[in-house]
Amino acid sequence: MGVSRRDLLRGAGGLVLGFGMGGIAGLTNGMAAEPQTGAALLPWPYKKLDVDAVAERGYEGYYKGACCYGAFEGIVGELRKAVGGPYSTFPTEMMVFGEGGVAGISTLCGSLNGAAMTIFLTTGGAEKGGKEKAFALIRELFNWYEQEQLPDYTPRNPRFQIVRSVSRSPLCHVSVTNWCKASKVKSFSKERAERCAWITASVARHTAQLLNDNAAGIFKAAHAIPASEQTCRGCHDQGGVLENTRGMMDCGGCHFTPKTRHPKV
Amino acid sequence: MGVSRRDLLRGAGGLVLGFGMGGIAGLTNGMAAEPQTGAALLPWPYKKLDVDAVAERGYEGYYKGACCYGAFEGIVGELRKAVGGPYSTFPTEMMVFGEGGVAGISTLCGSLNGAAMTIFLTTGGAEKGGKEKAFALIRELFNWYEQEQLPDYTPRNPRFQIVRSVSRSPLCHVSVTNWCKASKVKSFSKERAERCAWITASVARHTAQLLNDNAAGIFKAAHAIPASEQTCRGCHDQGGVLENTRGMMDCGGCHFTPKTRHPKV
Repeated sequence: MGVSRRDLLRGAGGLVLGFGMGGIAGLTNGMAAEPQTGAALLPWPYKKLDVDAVAERGYEGYYKGACCYGAFEGIVGELRKAVGGPYSTFPTEMMVFGEGGVAGISTLCGSLNGAAMTIFLTTGGAEKGGKEKAFALIRELFNWYEQEQLPDYTPRNPRFQIVRSVSRSPLCHVSVTNWCKASKVKSFSKERAERCAWITASVARHTAQLLNDNAAGIFKAAHAIPASEQTCRGCHDQGGVLENTRGMMDCGGCHFTPKTRHPKV
Repeated sequence: MGVSRRDLLRGAGGLVLGFGMGGIAGLTNGMAAEPQTGAALLPWPYKKLDVDAVAERGYEGYYKGACCYGAFEGIVGELRKAVGGPYSTFPTEMMVFGEGGVAGISTLCGSLNGAAMTIFLTTGGAEKGGKEKAFALIRELFNWYEQEQLPDYTPRNPRFQIVRSVSRSPLCHVSVTNWCKASKVKSFSKERAERCAWITASVARHTAQLLNDNAAGIFKAAHAIPASEQTCRGCHDQGGVLENTRGMMDCGGCHFTPKTRHPKV
């Protein structure tokens, strides 16, 4: 199409029409006009952040609203100070939903969920091509989380000292279990909560570093998908002979430990 | 504390101070005041929704911004029409982040991620006790998704006809794999995309039903955690002899298929 979304935005005298052609197509198809979002279009403006300030805000945020809130507020709270504008309109309280892998269900680590949203908010967009940069940053963050010894940030006023572990998974319950094994500490202890506060701080800090690098034009992915996972994907992912799944998680984090082998191929 | 958050809000002449005592404690500790969020406090006002209208908006939303956007916009788009107000300020475009289990990484099903956020936005809150109702609704949604034959909603103008399957997991790649097995269709086909559009519509629709029931005071959880999972949790979750994990996912969806047995206990 010859008219960009931003041209339409300007033509509408500041009224944001929402992304895509849905609203406009609706009008040309004779459907009733309806209220469109008045939110600022993505990406929202970004300013280089102090990564340690982000980490400390993430750590404190964990004890106010848990992991997802802490990671999101770590970044967005600092952007509210540095940029203001749209960041002051966001209901960050909503991020409490992601606690313990969403409402304690222990699916996706809440700090990753919250951090991924800050990445999309500051680098993404729904137009064709608008999501690719954000997705590359999110994938790097998730691979880093799976592969590194974490937490890698010590808060200024810690409640306990925390052992590091490798999660091999972006999932809450796997990450927690691997840390419990490494630390010999129980999963509902105050020490485990503190570990997740450090993880929240570490994830928020690393996300801010990725966003700073991206803003400076020097972002480069440093964590590739493991070779073992590429082997799995060779048969099971897009273009493989089976093509019966999708994903970029470390398959071996859950499937086929030494005790449980892959069927013969 | 004797002064509620809403009292503080009113006392501040409309300025939202953010939740918890962080901002206030900061002030009394002599830290500099800083910009607080100006977003409306949770829960945001809810009006009974037409569940089929939500489903159709979710289906169309999938083809604009994928699963997480579709489910979120299915609900929030209808609330923008019915309620307006704060819903018109939310940057729904951000929800594109959750595509394919977040940036295609295939962790948490994007439609569940988006739907969980709409539940928290309309029924949750960060104050003590404010999250329990929202978490109960989210857990019911996730259990329903794991246990039911889905998708259970057929869009008005479908691109293909879609076979149903049981996911046994809230994770994107598990849900996709189980559908690929049931349908004998590949994971990167147009039919699989259409299946995920139907899933998005089904999840958005069921979420609207749960929210309608909650608003009418008749919500009751209909899907319990499976007995097999309760057995696992007896040793591994809070209070168990091992207490080395946490969660409310169906353990057997991934662990200990007939080929891979639990170690002797």
